[in-house]
Amino acid sequence: MTLPPHGSNPKYVYQATKLPTPQQLIDFSVNVNPFGSPPILREKWHEWFPLLEDYPDPHASILKREISIKEGIGEEYLLIGNGGAEIIALVAQLYQGKRILIIQPAFSEYEQACLAQKCIVEHHVLEEGIWKLKMEELLPKVKHYDAIFLCTPNNPTGVVYDRQSIIELVEEGYRSQCSIIIDEAFYDFTVDSETYISLVKQYPNLIVLRSLTKMFAIAGLRLGIGVAQPQVIQQLAALKPHWSVNAIAIKAGLECISQDSYIRHTKQLIHVERNRLKDFYKENGFCMSESAVNFYLVKDPTITEAAPLYEYLLKKGLVPRHTMNFPGLDGRWLRFAIRKQNENNQLMEALSEWKNQN
Amino acid sequence: MTLPPHGSNPKYVYQATKLPTPQQLIDFSVNVNPFGSPPILREKWHEWFPLLEDYPDPHASILKREISIKEGIGEEYLLIGNGGAEIIALVAQLYQGKRILIIQPAFSEYEQACLAQKCIVEHHVLEEGIWKLKMEELLPKVKHYDAIFLCTPNNPTGVVYDRQSIIELVEEGYRSQCSIIIDEAFYDFTVDSETYISLVKQYPNLIVLRSLTKMFAIAGLRLGIGVAQPQVIQQLAALKPHWSVNAIAIKAGLECISQDSYIRHTKQLIHVERNRLKDFYKENGFCMSESAVNFYLVKDPTITEAAPLYEYLLKKGLVPRHTMNFPGLDGRWLRFAIRKQNENNQLMEALSEWKNQN
Repeated sequence: MTLPPHGSNPKYVYQATKLPTPQQLIDFSVNVNPFGSPPILREKWHEWFPLLEDYPDPHASILKREISIKEGIGEEYLLIGNGGAEIIALVAQLYQGKRILIIQPAFSEYEQACLAQKCIVEHHVLEEGIWKLKMEELLPKVKHYDAIFLCTPNNPTGVVYDRQSIIELVEEGYRSQCSIIIDEAFYDFTVDSETYISLVKQYPNLIVLRSLTKMFAIAGLRLGIGVAQPQVIQQLAALKPHWSVNAIAIKAGLECISQDSYIRHTKQLIHVERNRLKDFYKENGFCMSESAVNFYLVKDPTITEAAPLYEYLLKKGLVPRHTMNFPGLDGRWLRFAIRKQNENNQLMEALSEWKNQN
Repeated sequence: MTLPPHGSNPKYVYQATKLPTPQQLIDFSVNVNPFGSPPILREKWHEWFPLLEDYPDPHASILKREISIKEGIGEEYLLIGNGGAEIIALVAQLYQGKRILIIQPAFSEYEQACLAQKCIVEHHVLEEGIWKLKMEELLPKVKHYDAIFLCTPNNPTGVVYDRQSIIELVEEGYRSQCSIIIDEAFYDFTVDSETYISLVKQYPNLIVLRSLTKMFAIAGLRLGIGVAQPQVIQQLAALKPHWSVNAIAIKAGLECISQDSYIRHTKQLIHVERNRLKDFYKENGFCMSESAVNFYLVKDPTITEAAPLYEYLLKKGLVPRHTMNFPGLDGRWLRFAIRKQNENNQLMEALSEWKNQN
């Protein structure tokens, strides 16, 4: 079976795998908010049409000010970007040709962006199934790199790394002139984890990335945030194309960041579903990652790689994300978004049936 | 009088100049289509809301295919970008640290993007008021540079450069390994000029830029095109952030490129207005640039710099674009968009009055 490239939409998944596309599909491969975007966006949508014609504010100043207030950090520490991916590409430019370590498994964009900037990219692969930072292994490596990328809550595992370990990493980076880039794209989905944004004031070697496209399901509009000390933000801003954040994204972002009850509601529902799924996987002999967010990894320990299970689910119109291109996973796991109750039910039914057949 | 930075919206112009903002404003400083975006965009707008939630196609494949058909060039020669500005920033990355020549006056983004990439930027300034390429001066310079940026139809003059001269320049660039980057952002407004896109197949050193934000007044959405040989497009694509073109821009672009009658209508009305303005400026002792597009430069030859005229117009709520930051213009000219008939009339009335007073 030929596998589709990462992040493909279901249509390409079926094209690549040459499987017939079922009538009904449920996309478990995309990890944005299963409840969609906040209703206020639809209500405001018609008001935003006139924004089409004028150039957007190149600094997204109003949005930056609101985020500054919300996150309790000065505007000079913030860069608003055309999705998290733009900020990642800009950060990679800062370390052009340098030595980069990526804590794996992780979102594949760090590696792609760094390779495009001719960086020497190496991987620190965490122990499969556990995915914890072991500082005695990680810290001695820090001095050999110019920058380290990590993602917490982690994509694709959903695991939140230990805070004390991260702080040790940032401090060791500070001592040995290694930047630490923490991608918090899925931070909004966590219940009790703490952001690293406040540490940016203290550590000039720390860059924190955030995304508004996941919690608010505005992946089609693109909106991300970079947080770092002002001299780093200025460097990134100089490299950023003018007007890169479109006018609709700015307006949508302004609405989204005040949606506290929508965030709470989403977190709560996902929390309930995650626990239900956890029980199901345990009872049915699957391994599930210790996710704190809206997606997780699953493995059937009775098979060595997930391809047959992937194909089985695709045939039923349930579309997981394969993990062939994640170092340290190499296709042994599947990633699933936590979706609405009835959709998760359909997945569990199919997986029960799989277990009964195998 | 403190001048605002380039491309500012009128609000910032009045803030920077500390002039009171009049009740009624007409913005002559932005050079997008005065008739706004094609009506089809407003009609389709509500249908596009659901696009918010899904990741856009990272290659904008459907739009690329349609543009490929329209421009008669293979898809492998095209890159769809988040506005022309993104393509300019990507092109600048290709020539990082290299020697760049910009034919001036020109859009200021080339210089900014190249300086951000630590290029050595020099200017070839054309003779003021004439703005023609003199090949005996230009050609001997080519071998000293890695890339030359030029804009035709030119922003800010509106002048279309002689085609034979451009071809000579591209050929000389080919011989001496100098890339020629031709920005055709305002090409859609010209009546009888020819694009350089077809030459790209022949010249590996030629890059042509296009923008959809001007003719279709979608500056708030961002949409641009880069045209070059496939190996150049691949290099640019590798540097481009993932999903940089948002989903709404892709849909709007698809509608726009088939708007032939809208383009024809716009061109015709602008042509009529441009001739009316031309006659007016001639009769009233102003100098006007030989514009072929939807904006032009004006100078009152009786004053050495345009600041008093700029201030006079701002006070009347007529907002020109100052030219302080264009090498070779240095504030002696003002740039005006060609707007609708009644708006151009108001400008002409104010300028008549100015002449009577001065």
